[in-house]
Amino acid sequence: MPAFEKHEYAQRVKRTKESMQERGIDVLLVSHPANMNYLTGYDGWSFYVHQGLLIALDQEEPVWLGRGMDANGARLTTCLSEDNIREYADDYVQSLVKHPMHFIADVIKEKGWGAKRIGLEMDQFYFTHRNYVELEKSLPSATFVDGNALVNWVRVAKSEAEVEYLRRAGKIAVKAIQAAVDSIDVGVRECDAAAAIAHAQYSGTAEYAGDYPAIVPLMMAGEATSTPHLTWTERQYRADEAVLLELAGTYRHYHAPIARTIFLGPTPPPLMQETAEVVTDGLARTLEFVKPGVTAEEVEEAWRKAIAHSTVVKESRLGYSIGVNYPPDWGEQTISLRPGDKTVLEPNMTIHLIPGIWYKEVGFEIDATIRITETGNESLYDYPVELITK
Amino acid sequence: MPAFEKHEYAQRVKRTKESMQERGIDVLLVSHPANMNYLTGYDGWSFYVHQGLLIALDQEEPVWLGRGMDANGARLTTCLSEDNIREYADDYVQSLVKHPMHFIADVIKEKGWGAKRIGLEMDQFYFTHRNYVELEKSLPSATFVDGNALVNWVRVAKSEAEVEYLRRAGKIAVKAIQAAVDSIDVGVRECDAAAAIAHAQYSGTAEYAGDYPAIVPLMMAGEATSTPHLTWTERQYRADEAVLLELAGTYRHYHAPIARTIFLGPTPPPLMQETAEVVTDGLARTLEFVKPGVTAEEVEEAWRKAIAHSTVVKESRLGYSIGVNYPPDWGEQTISLRPGDKTVLEPNMTIHLIPGIWYKEVGFEIDATIRITETGNESLYDYPVELITK
Repeated sequence: MPAFEKHEYAQRVKRTKESMQERGIDVLLVSHPANMNYLTGYDGWSFYVHQGLLIALDQEEPVWLGRGMDANGARLTTCLSEDNIREYADDYVQSLVKHPMHFIADVIKEKGWGAKRIGLEMDQFYFTHRNYVELEKSLPSATFVDGNALVNWVRVAKSEAEVEYLRRAGKIAVKAIQAAVDSIDVGVRECDAAAAIAHAQYSGTAEYAGDYPAIVPLMMAGEATSTPHLTWTERQYRADEAVLLELAGTYRHYHAPIARTIFLGPTPPPLMQETAEVVTDGLARTLEFVKPGVTAEEVEEAWRKAIAHSTVVKESRLGYSIGVNYPPDWGEQTISLRPGDKTVLEPNMTIHLIPGIWYKEVGFEIDATIRITETGNESLYDYPVELITK
Repeated sequence: MPAFEKHEYAQRVKRTKESMQERGIDVLLVSHPANMNYLTGYDGWSFYVHQGLLIALDQEEPVWLGRGMDANGARLTTCLSEDNIREYADDYVQSLVKHPMHFIADVIKEKGWGAKRIGLEMDQFYFTHRNYVELEKSLPSATFVDGNALVNWVRVAKSEAEVEYLRRAGKIAVKAIQAAVDSIDVGVRECDAAAAIAHAQYSGTAEYAGDYPAIVPLMMAGEATSTPHLTWTERQYRADEAVLLELAGTYRHYHAPIARTIFLGPTPPPLMQETAEVVTDGLARTLEFVKPGVTAEEVEEAWRKAIAHSTVVKESRLGYSIGVNYPPDWGEQTISLRPGDKTVLEPNMTIHLIPGIWYKEVGFEIDATIRITETGNESLYDYPVELITK
């Protein structure tokens, strides 16, 4: 069963079509798995072969296109009518002769869309250059236009039902970070801590099943705290080292990321304590500023001002929009909190602020995952915002 | 530390360059995370932003190119010299103005490769159409040629060190499937079984840490057994239903997939029993045929003959090559066991044979993950090949 009511999907498709009209797109080929899920409920780990949705201004329902063996998955997880589930034969898969885009082009022609303005997600993973080449060859009368991130932007303000899912994800996030804090200790293998975290992430709460996050637990210890995207090894944690954690609670593919830092000893080194204080305080002061009407770049500016008295420097973006997603990224690839992003924040946007510091000498991570409310913002979960010592 | 000795990476780069010469490629841009890992050891969940390696005939070492915050990850996980770790500023990330391919093009020009024949992985996820457009704009004197799956084919026969890693992955696969068999039962939530599996996958054995597989556990129960790529929900298992499982043990990104079917009751329905017998026997007979010198399509033909006496029909490919990988696919995208694939099997190729059946009325999965030996083949793990009743 799809995760939302049928009318919610209809609303999402309607808003997508409005955006297509604004951009002069007649037919949109959606390749991004999260966009496919958002518009129809489709949910399966089938995105390692080419697939997609077609959204057309002159047809009410989206058309799902995928590999034959996944069509029953579309029947089970979407409300699409049988006519709009279109499957390609298995010899299109990773062939040097046939290509799934030939099949998609055939459906486009059959529907009478072969001379239309067709939007493509030009810079989304899952839309390869070869996809473009094969579509262009197969549809000589079509005009191709960039529909990149079009659906991502439709996703940016969440519905009440989505907010409820994000809150459930928040509950799971708390369980996952607590599993990390409980399991990480001197002499424990990193992989065993990762196992405890994954167990909490997948199991979820007694009420709500966890789902797989779009990113596995990122967990760096010792000298690895100089970089943010490493995972675990068979190494054992040592006394007096820091452990950076960035992970998420996930409910039906909706993400609540949480990042914290553990120091395995009673007294963190002065530079770490100082960095933790500056960043934690800076984050708190930034959150006081976040409300509807301010822009993404103004939030980053507020952060920069809040830490200006210190020696802490953060050159990477402060945060980004989150919601429904699939590997490899839980970021929505829309709003970025950084200079130049003039997006005006609105109620029910949901944002991950992660002022991570990855110096050679010290690494520190802490974060906030928030929903913009009518007057300010609120956290999606309740967990102490502080450097954890153990 | 990289997973292999420095000379092994040097060998891999050498063989990649030989293949480039055969294809008339001077410089290869490698985008696929598994190919990046294979050639340098680079290991980080940073592939949600654009990154890559440049392999050039006129330079010994590869050049790593990625986001600034990930450069320390490259320093920690590869043996590349400092000159060959090149980082782009954070404002290239998901920007509408700058694009990471501009940075990569700048490095190509600086190296004097701007008018060379440049190979691109045209149909790999992680190489988007926009990547191509930006490279073409930035490098007007270059000639772009298809280098798709070039490194994947270099990966196809495994070294002794890789075989050892695959055997370790096999040990972890057995622990993971056993965790599934132990935890799945009537009344248990699917998500709690998934949690037990993930725990076993990440924790590994007492000797060997598990790693994250490129695909999360695929687990279908009840009516969902009509399709192969769904995951878990909060639903509880019911009596007298089947559960299909496809999952992997993973050691340092090397995969040993394992698939089994559990029936939650003493007596599976006749159609299921019959299908299980035909498929299990057909698989055994196919394995007797697999040895160096036979082709991929001949293996599939042997399978088809072995089940010809029955009503079982399998239209999708019988199997594919496996090894090192990252999400979204543990398949290597080289050998496919199906008509038309004339690849001759060689010692130390490693293959996942998965004769899965996903009918509306019955689903059944069982598999073999094998290494081609000098005279035949051997399993990467030891686990009963049978329908499991519980």
